[in-house]
Amino acid sequence: MSPFELFGIGLPIIQAPMAGVQGSALAIAVSNAGGLGSLPCATLSLDVLRSELATLTAGTSNPYNVNFFCHTPPRSDPGREAAWRQLLRRYDDEFGLDASAVAVGAGRAPFSHDAADVLSEFTPPVVSFHFGLPASDLLQRVRAWGAKVVSSATTVDEARWLEARGVDAIIAQGCEAGGHRGMFLSDDLTTQVGTLALVPQIVRAVRIPVIAAGGIADAAGVAAAVALGAVAAQIGTAYLLCPEATTSAVHRAALTSDIARHTALTNVFTGRPARGIVNRMMRELGPMNGSVPAFPLATAALAPLRARAEAQGAGDFSPLWAGQNVSGCKNVAAAVLTHEFAARSPDRAGLSR
Amino acid sequence: MSPFELFGIGLPIIQAPMAGVQGSALAIAVSNAGGLGSLPCATLSLDVLRSELATLTAGTSNPYNVNFFCHTPPRSDPGREAAWRQLLRRYDDEFGLDASAVAVGAGRAPFSHDAADVLSEFTPPVVSFHFGLPASDLLQRVRAWGAKVVSSATTVDEARWLEARGVDAIIAQGCEAGGHRGMFLSDDLTTQVGTLALVPQIVRAVRIPVIAAGGIADAAGVAAAVALGAVAAQIGTAYLLCPEATTSAVHRAALTSDIARHTALTNVFTGRPARGIVNRMMRELGPMNGSVPAFPLATAALAPLRARAEAQGAGDFSPLWAGQNVSGCKNVAAAVLTHEFAARSPDRAGLSR
Repeated sequence: MSPFELFGIGLPIIQAPMAGVQGSALAIAVSNAGGLGSLPCATLSLDVLRSELATLTAGTSNPYNVNFFCHTPPRSDPGREAAWRQLLRRYDDEFGLDASAVAVGAGRAPFSHDAADVLSEFTPPVVSFHFGLPASDLLQRVRAWGAKVVSSATTVDEARWLEARGVDAIIAQGCEAGGHRGMFLSDDLTTQVGTLALVPQIVRAVRIPVIAAGGIADAAGVAAAVALGAVAAQIGTAYLLCPEATTSAVHRAALTSDIARHTALTNVFTGRPARGIVNRMMRELGPMNGSVPAFPLATAALAPLRARAEAQGAGDFSPLWAGQNVSGCKNVAAAVLTHEFAARSPDRAGLSR
Repeated sequence: MSPFELFGIGLPIIQAPMAGVQGSALAIAVSNAGGLGSLPCATLSLDVLRSELATLTAGTSNPYNVNFFCHTPPRSDPGREAAWRQLLRRYDDEFGLDASAVAVGAGRAPFSHDAADVLSEFTPPVVSFHFGLPASDLLQRVRAWGAKVVSSATTVDEARWLEARGVDAIIAQGCEAGGHRGMFLSDDLTTQVGTLALVPQIVRAVRIPVIAAGGIADAAGVAAAVALGAVAAQIGTAYLLCPEATTSAVHRAALTSDIARHTALTNVFTGRPARGIVNRMMRELGPMNGSVPAFPLATAALAPLRARAEAQGAGDFSPLWAGQNVSGCKNVAAAVLTHEFAARSPDRAGLSR
C-alpha cells in the first residue's frame, strides 16, 4: 500500500507529533509540502485544541494527523509526590524557589469524549495514539467520520495487539526515537528494540502497513526504512530546528551543540521513559529514577524550576527531547526538509502500487 | 568502495566472528560462498589457533578474516572474585557443585606477539579487532603482510579514534547486535546507539568504508544498510543455527523458542556488556551487575554451573548471545544463507564502483 492509498499523501513522510515543541504551524507546513503533518494534542486544553484545529484546517487542505495520548490517569499519591518534591528541594533552594507554590496537576490528559466532541467538528482524516488505544467507544467515535487510526508499537507483541484491535497502520517506534516511548504492554526497557531490528519483524508479524520511526533523519534513512518494508517514515527530531517549530531557545541551543550526541531514556521529567539529551537533571536524578511519581504527575513538580533555569538560559531541568540521530536538524523551512527527506522516494500522489 | 575493492569479496556480507559458537567450518562456508568468513580467535590457545588456520586455509582460497579482542587484561582482584563466587553460591548449592573447585583463569586473551607469530605463518588478508586496537607495534606486524585492519565503533567518537589510527574500515556496531559491545572509549551504556542512527552518522564522520552491524538478518536488512551508506553488512545471529556453527544445543533451543525475542545487554557472564537472550542468570543477578569481576575474569566462576545446567538441558547459566532480530536464524547451510542475505545486492566480484 502506498502512502497515498493509506493517507492520501504524496510523500512517504509523517511529521512526528511532538507535544511542547510544535503546534499547527509545523503541521501545516509539512502537510502542504506533501507529507503528513501532525498536531500533538496531549497537552492542549479543549479551547486551544479547537483553535489549533481551526488554524490547521484553514492553513492546509491536505490530509493531517492529530495525536493523543491514551494512558490511564494515575491515582494521585500524595506521599510519593511529596517524596519526589523533597528530592527536588535542593534545586529549589539553589534557585530560590518556594516549593510549596508548585501546582498539582496532570499536564497531559488522555483522549476523552470532550476531545472527540471537538474533533468531530473538524473530522481529521488521521488520528494517531500513543501508549496503546483509547476505549472502544471512543475509538468508534473517531472511526465514525472515517478517520484512519494509527498507533505506535515498540515490540512485536504490541504490533499484534494493535492489529487485533483494527488499527489502519502501525508506527514501529525503534529505540532510537526521541520523546516518549510508546510502550504499553510492558514497562521493561530491555524489551525496547532498535529500528533496524524492529521494523522488519513487525512487517512480518502483521498484515497492515507499517511506518518506521526512530533515528531517521535524512533521505538515506527514509530509503532504509522503505528497504525494511515500511510504507513511510515518521520523523520528529530533524524538524526541531525548523522556524515553524516552537522549540525553546535552550532546546535549540542543546540540539546544535555537541551534547546532543548523547541522549538517554529518562523518566525524571514526566514519569514515563522518554528519550532526551542528557542534562543535569538526568545525570543527577536519573536517567531512570524509581521514586518518580506516575506519568504524568511528575511534570508539575519540576515546572517552576524548569522555568527559572530556562530564564537564565539553562536547559538543566528541561526535557530536551531528541532521538539518537540529530544530524538532520536544520534551521530551514519544514517544507524544504520534507522534500529533502523524500528525495529518494518518487512522489506517489495519484499513483498506486 | 566496493566489498571487492576492500576485501576481495563478491558479496557485501561479512560473517560476524562469534567466539564459542563457531570455528573454521562456518568461516570456510561463508568465504567459499563469496562473503567474508571470520574466525573468532579470542578464546583459542596458540595450538588451536594454528590448527584452525590450517583448516581454514585448506578449506578456502578466498579471503577470510581473523578476529581478536584487544582488551587490557585486568589485575586479578581476589576479594572481588570471592564476593562474586559468594553471589553464585546459592546456585552451586542447588546444583551440588563444589565452588572451591572453580579454576581461576582468563578464558579470553588479548591479541599478542605470540598470536601474531602464528598469524604470520598464514598472513590472513583481513584482521579485525574488538574493544579498540592493539598496541602500535602489534598492529604494525599485522600490516606488514598486507592485512586489512578493521575494528568496531559503537559511537561517532570511537569511529574517529579508529580512523585516526589508520584502520582500513570501521564496523558500525549498532545496539541491536548480539554478543559483546565493542565499546572502548566509554563504559556508559546510554552512549550505545541503534544501527539505523549510528551508521549514517559514522558514514558522515569518517572517510573510510563503513560496515553496518546489528539487527541485520535478511536481504532487506542488507539493503537498508547499503541505503544508509554502508559498504557491507556484518551478520552474526542469523548464522547461529547453521550446521557449520558449533552453537550448543541449549543455545539452539533458545534461539528457536519465543524467549529469543527478549534480549538484554548483560555483564554477568564475562564482566563486559554483551547482548544475549534473557535467561535465569540475567534475571536473577542482572542484566547488569556492579559486583561482577572485570572482563574476562567473570567467566571462570560460572563455568562449572553452566556445564552442569547444560548437561541437564538448561541454558539458565549460559551466555545465549543473540541480537535483537533472530528472525533470520535458519538451520540451513551457511552458503545458502549468505546468498539469501545478498539477494538484493549484485555480485560485485571483479567489478568496481
